[in-house]
Amino acid sequence: MSGGLRVWQDMDKEREALQAWKERVEQELDRVVAFWMEHSHDQEHGGFFTCLGRDGQVYDDLKYVWLQGRQVWMYCRLYRKFERFRSPELLDSAKAGGEFLLRFARVAPPGKKCAFVLTRDGQPIKVQRTIFSECFYTMAMNELWRVTGEARYQNEAVEMMDQIVYWVREDPSGLGRPCLPGAPASESMAVPMMLLNLVDQLGEADEELAGTYAELGDWCAQRILQHVQRDGQAVLENVSEDGGELSGCLGRHQNPGHALEAGWFLLRHAIRKGDPELRARVIDKFLLLPFRSGWDPDHGGLFYFQDADGLCPTQLEWAMKLWWPHSEAMIAFLMGYSDSGDPTLLHLFYQVAEYTFRQFRDPEHGEWFGYLTREGKVALTIKGGPFKGEWGTARAAPQGLGCVHPSSTAGLAPKVLRAGVTGPGSDCQEPEVPAPVLLHSSG
Amino acid sequence: MSGGLRVWQDMDKEREALQAWKERVEQELDRVVAFWMEHSHDQEHGGFFTCLGRDGQVYDDLKYVWLQGRQVWMYCRLYRKFERFRSPELLDSAKAGGEFLLRFARVAPPGKKCAFVLTRDGQPIKVQRTIFSECFYTMAMNELWRVTGEARYQNEAVEMMDQIVYWVREDPSGLGRPCLPGAPASESMAVPMMLLNLVDQLGEADEELAGTYAELGDWCAQRILQHVQRDGQAVLENVSEDGGELSGCLGRHQNPGHALEAGWFLLRHAIRKGDPELRARVIDKFLLLPFRSGWDPDHGGLFYFQDADGLCPTQLEWAMKLWWPHSEAMIAFLMGYSDSGDPTLLHLFYQVAEYTFRQFRDPEHGEWFGYLTREGKVALTIKGGPFKGEWGTARAAPQGLGCVHPSSTAGLAPKVLRAGVTGPGSDCQEPEVPAPVLLHSSG
Repeated sequence: MSGGLRVWQDMDKEREALQAWKERVEQELDRVVAFWMEHSHDQEHGGFFTCLGRDGQVYDDLKYVWLQGRQVWMYCRLYRKFERFRSPELLDSAKAGGEFLLRFARVAPPGKKCAFVLTRDGQPIKVQRTIFSECFYTMAMNELWRVTGEARYQNEAVEMMDQIVYWVREDPSGLGRPCLPGAPASESMAVPMMLLNLVDQLGEADEELAGTYAELGDWCAQRILQHVQRDGQAVLENVSEDGGELSGCLGRHQNPGHALEAGWFLLRHAIRKGDPELRARVIDKFLLLPFRSGWDPDHGGLFYFQDADGLCPTQLEWAMKLWWPHSEAMIAFLMGYSDSGDPTLLHLFYQVAEYTFRQFRDPEHGEWFGYLTREGKVALTIKGGPFKGEWGTARAAPQGLGCVHPSSTAGLAPKVLRAGVTGPGSDCQEPEVPAPVLLHSSG
Repeated sequence: MSGGLRVWQDMDKEREALQAWKERVEQELDRVVAFWMEHSHDQEHGGFFTCLGRDGQVYDDLKYVWLQGRQVWMYCRLYRKFERFRSPELLDSAKAGGEFLLRFARVAPPGKKCAFVLTRDGQPIKVQRTIFSECFYTMAMNELWRVTGEARYQNEAVEMMDQIVYWVREDPSGLGRPCLPGAPASESMAVPMMLLNLVDQLGEADEELAGTYAELGDWCAQRILQHVQRDGQAVLENVSEDGGELSGCLGRHQNPGHALEAGWFLLRHAIRKGDPELRARVIDKFLLLPFRSGWDPDHGGLFYFQDADGLCPTQLEWAMKLWWPHSEAMIAFLMGYSDSGDPTLLHLFYQVAEYTFRQFRDPEHGEWFGYLTREGKVALTIKGGPFKGEWGTARAAPQGLGCVHPSSTAGLAPKVLRAGVTGPGSDCQEPEVPAPVLLHSSG
């Protein structure tokens, strides 16, 4: 067989493998959306039940604002990007969720601070002293505007975004965190990651807002990059305000899934900027490095937490395998491959995807388990909980898969993976890069 | 063999078995104290390092106030109750820890609110909006007074106690928790448990304070008993202010180790009151019931958390086996046996003690592992961390064992288990019931 023929045959095989994954993921997406459509809608109060047992039974009716915002966002994205999800039921549920947020998420309107969790009928139970509830609120509102065209949603999104940026860059006192003299001036990577994701969200097909937030996006990218420490050998979850390593467990703390997620946020940023040097750096430091240190050599899967010195983390769940780092890894590797054409990244995608579909999927009742032991046994049978909602499962994967396109350098990723959906909003073009999937957090 | 002879032989066997356990526990106590004496003392700033790796190496120098207070308390108790621990080194370390707390624990003196965690040199990092740092502070100060006779320690203990009681029974606003309309008016069992333990601590051999807090002790007992719900079939960790079941996961949450710990706090209360009816109720509802529902039938050991309806808890670590519920169970069953003479309780003690010594003990480096998987594998190799300090390990057991005495009803528990130590403080008599071991909390 000639060398040229073999290359073509290899490409055919690769195309078939990717096509098979696309079909698996699409089927999975359909099953998961059906699960949430069937079990999570609160017809009485609007919004979503997210505490769902293995078979979808509601085991608690609390409404976690992160998950309310994410589900609104997810429904709108699906409606906007996939022809087969353009159903009135999906749109109506997204709008009912959005109205629930508008009415109840903010604890003391006109103040912007949102609750972390609400009663079923919208009374606040707990407030976090962070920006994340507000970020998911913003994502939901911006997507609602994109599918409905109603300006009130976009006004809400932009006003909240301004507030978040003010808390992060000007004055955090409105978040309610006490200033204690022993607390180090530290930055969690989650904050610039989340902000970068919002810049991406609000700037999509919106030149004016993209311009407004361009400097912010660069700032976020630079701040995330500061978390690469130890001569480029480790991504640390927390660093000092001026980009140095912090002492103790806080400083050594690593979260491989977060690093991989930051990786694909940065990849999108590099693509927007047309910056191949940044892309190469991101693939090296935020995709390959966290995967190599974070993948369990004995049982497979990504560790939840690690210590950069290889010491034992203090979190009881450190060695558990959570669904979301695996979703993030799948997106990151597929996007990295799509953008660079490097087959190493495609093979890492396969490795993670095979583990993920084998270990997390529940063939019996649908949806995914979220929490496995180190060895891969189901530790929690719930399908949703305080931190696990709809998109936490397969949502990431189709978003990533839906947009893989032929790399300009390698041309291996088949066009067939494009989802090819146009939406009714302002962006009837498939985006150049995968749709954002947001930060996840542990249960 | 005559029936009478068999009874005597059985009693001999029982005596031997208990004697063997007493020796095992005493040896273990010596090893554990040696571990903390060697590795935890901060000679420069006073106080204790509690983040210790498997071999005792300090992996973080933060000072958690709960653990500082507990270690001071433990050292004083050992000094006061066991001849072989009456060393100047132990006393000096306890005093250095006490001075560290006096100087740094309170965030904004003269305000009473204490930090949760401090830097090595005493700067506050984080404050919890609960009473527990203050409770352990109080325990430490009261014990320091008992071993040194210095009134300033006792003044500090009593003033802090008054503040804690005010927060719990009069006005919690000083704790800094926001009042949100959706938050249910709920009571965590930890609060009346901890207070009952303080009543016990401050009232020991002190008629005046015992009188002062007598009504408080009854109130605590009554509040704890309200956590027995569902027609006496479940101990629930959280109930409504008026003693009803709360909805959702919060209401169904169970913590078997906590129930067992509450059990022996209540047993001590019943003994002080001379109330055999309460004793019987406590043995039934706080010892036998949590053990039967909380013991893992497949792998042994007590689950960390459960759901009263048998649903899957949302805490990732729910099925893990932690050292402290096992310590509490050992104390509870030995005390219950000592007080009632019921051999069922003695055999449950053996069952728990055998599991505990087999699974948690580290024969190589000393001390105990704190966190095992459901199957009993070591999940975290640390010996100390943010929630695990010295007494978290074997401390409970010798305290329980040291005081077992012949039950007036059955006479099986041999006198030989008495530790028989007199102290230099106000109580040169061995107490009638085991010395208190405090609330533990998860890592």
